[in-house]
Amino acid sequence: MRTVEWNPQNGELNLIDQRLLPGQFQIYVCQDWMEVAAAIREMVVRGAPAIGAAAAFGMALAGLRSQASSLKELREELATAALGLAAARPTAVNLAWGVKKMMQASRREAGTTAELQQMLVDEAQLIADQDVRTNLRMAEIGASLIEDGDTILHHCNTGALATVDWGTALGVIRMAYQKGKRVQVLVDETRPRLQGARLTAWELGQYGIPYEIISDGAAGHFLRTGQVQKVFFGADRVAANGDVANKIGTYMLALAAQANHVPVYPVFPTTTVDLDLANGDQIPIEERSPEEVLNIEVNGMRVAPAGAKARNPAFDITPHGLITALVTENGIAYPPFDITLARLVRGNPDSSRDQ
Amino acid sequence: MRTVEWNPQNGELNLIDQRLLPGQFQIYVCQDWMEVAAAIREMVVRGAPAIGAAAAFGMALAGLRSQASSLKELREELATAALGLAAARPTAVNLAWGVKKMMQASRREAGTTAELQQMLVDEAQLIADQDVRTNLRMAEIGASLIEDGDTILHHCNTGALATVDWGTALGVIRMAYQKGKRVQVLVDETRPRLQGARLTAWELGQYGIPYEIISDGAAGHFLRTGQVQKVFFGADRVAANGDVANKIGTYMLALAAQANHVPVYPVFPTTTVDLDLANGDQIPIEERSPEEVLNIEVNGMRVAPAGAKARNPAFDITPHGLITALVTENGIAYPPFDITLARLVRGNPDSSRDQ
Repeated sequence: MRTVEWNPQNGELNLIDQRLLPGQFQIYVCQDWMEVAAAIREMVVRGAPAIGAAAAFGMALAGLRSQASSLKELREELATAALGLAAARPTAVNLAWGVKKMMQASRREAGTTAELQQMLVDEAQLIADQDVRTNLRMAEIGASLIEDGDTILHHCNTGALATVDWGTALGVIRMAYQKGKRVQVLVDETRPRLQGARLTAWELGQYGIPYEIISDGAAGHFLRTGQVQKVFFGADRVAANGDVANKIGTYMLALAAQANHVPVYPVFPTTTVDLDLANGDQIPIEERSPEEVLNIEVNGMRVAPAGAKARNPAFDITPHGLITALVTENGIAYPPFDITLARLVRGNPDSSRDQ
Repeated sequence: MRTVEWNPQNGELNLIDQRLLPGQFQIYVCQDWMEVAAAIREMVVRGAPAIGAAAAFGMALAGLRSQASSLKELREELATAALGLAAARPTAVNLAWGVKKMMQASRREAGTTAELQQMLVDEAQLIADQDVRTNLRMAEIGASLIEDGDTILHHCNTGALATVDWGTALGVIRMAYQKGKRVQVLVDETRPRLQGARLTAWELGQYGIPYEIISDGAAGHFLRTGQVQKVFFGADRVAANGDVANKIGTYMLALAAQANHVPVYPVFPTTTVDLDLANGDQIPIEERSPEEVLNIEVNGMRVAPAGAKARNPAFDITPHGLITALVTENGIAYPPFDITLARLVRGNPDSSRDQ
């Protein structure tokens, strides 16, 4: 099944509950938009493209569950849902993008509320289908960067679970492997939520791609001792100058790669680009609960002392100067990114700029 | 009590069992040198200065428990114990240094085996007492680098628990705080063994110094956004050119600090310097069990998928070019370290060079 999958029989949204993987594979069912917003906030579903699609279906649910008796009333309810969904998480621009696309659809001409409701479901389904196609294009394009025998360092999770299906950076690795290139992956465990150890390791196991998990701080050692040929990760928002907001820890990884002349490739759909922001310092960084840092246990014992405090920024900014090239479904952008990235984005009529 | 404490009543070595902190404070008793070697290997006791002192007491125990009927036989048994203790962990040179100091003592003139046995206990006690005095000198010297109001980023544990007492880098912070400087500490949790979240947080809590735990990958964000004034950590071995082997993750931290013009200060006794090694690439890096990376749990559930593989280098090398100054009990060395560090080491008749 897809990570984000609409059930047309009963008009419900099914999400793979990523909080329980790899221990349990369980479906989380959303019956209204507020459940979708909660699922995004609680990270039942995560990954910029996946939460973009989930939010679109959240808007579809807001339409379907509405008791509105007029199109005007329905559109007002949709506007309320849009605000609630967009506020669920601040950093990934795909969330706002998915909501905006649905708001545009809601303004289209419709004869009845039922007709508009169906149009919204169709639009969300289109967004989801398009995400899969986009990922496959990105994977084809990005796979050309990987050579036979490469060891690739990967941060967070950017696979099928971070998207509707297939994945971004991990999709590139998967495609290269499928084309017969021998690759190995060093998987950053990606504290605090351990999306690497938890989700990326699980996905790579499913695909049969050899991998080893490392603690995030060990990446520098493997880079410095020449054991890594490429660094790949995803993105949650990319500014016009090519600065990349991505999972916390990405910045230090990119620094260590550059210091050791190892190329750094963020992979993302052009919907992740926010041309309205000149640089990464304008991207809002979500700070999540300290409990995500403090809740780990070893041998059933909580590690941190009782009463310990913690800080938990969920993303960081990797300045464009640390990046070798940006991989999108419309091609690969090399520096100067302020020119090349805009060109790729303009190639996509669905980019956030066009809204 | 001290982290490494001799019990003269019964001739046993007491160690604070650091695997159980902060949940339990328990004493681990060593009755012979093999128990000391196991305690070092299993990280009951860890931290370069602490394992140096523990190994010295291990040699004292090898002497005390011996049934040798001649000095020659006793010295042969000591040589065997020396090999076993020195092999317990490869990276921290203090371990080899402590054993060597004890071997020198074992060659001193003695009338009887009982007399030599007592000389060994006295020598180990001297090493332990000296470690505490050295740490206090280092703390006084290093505290001058800290300004009122500083937020300090700290990696691993370098406090009383990493030494016989007081600490190295954390001892500097503690001294600055004791002198009335307001400081705050951002505590790298320090995966995989979480010495930061587990031990440094616990020590800072005891001292009343405000702190917040962060995941190691978050350090870059705090450095890049101007929230950190100094970076402090310890060292397990320092090469003649100033390259520092320290807990895995230190290299990436130093890179991020330098990229953001934040000064980087390793703090260590001159016994941690290995002038026989021209640079850090000659320092052996211990690779520990993958289980240390894979064994973490959240909500009682193991995170990594069953059958996952992992790599676990325990240390990395921070090239001297990333270091602002080296803090020792004999003073602060600024670049060029190949000249300044040797000068400080020669100021200490007990440095590894003199063995």
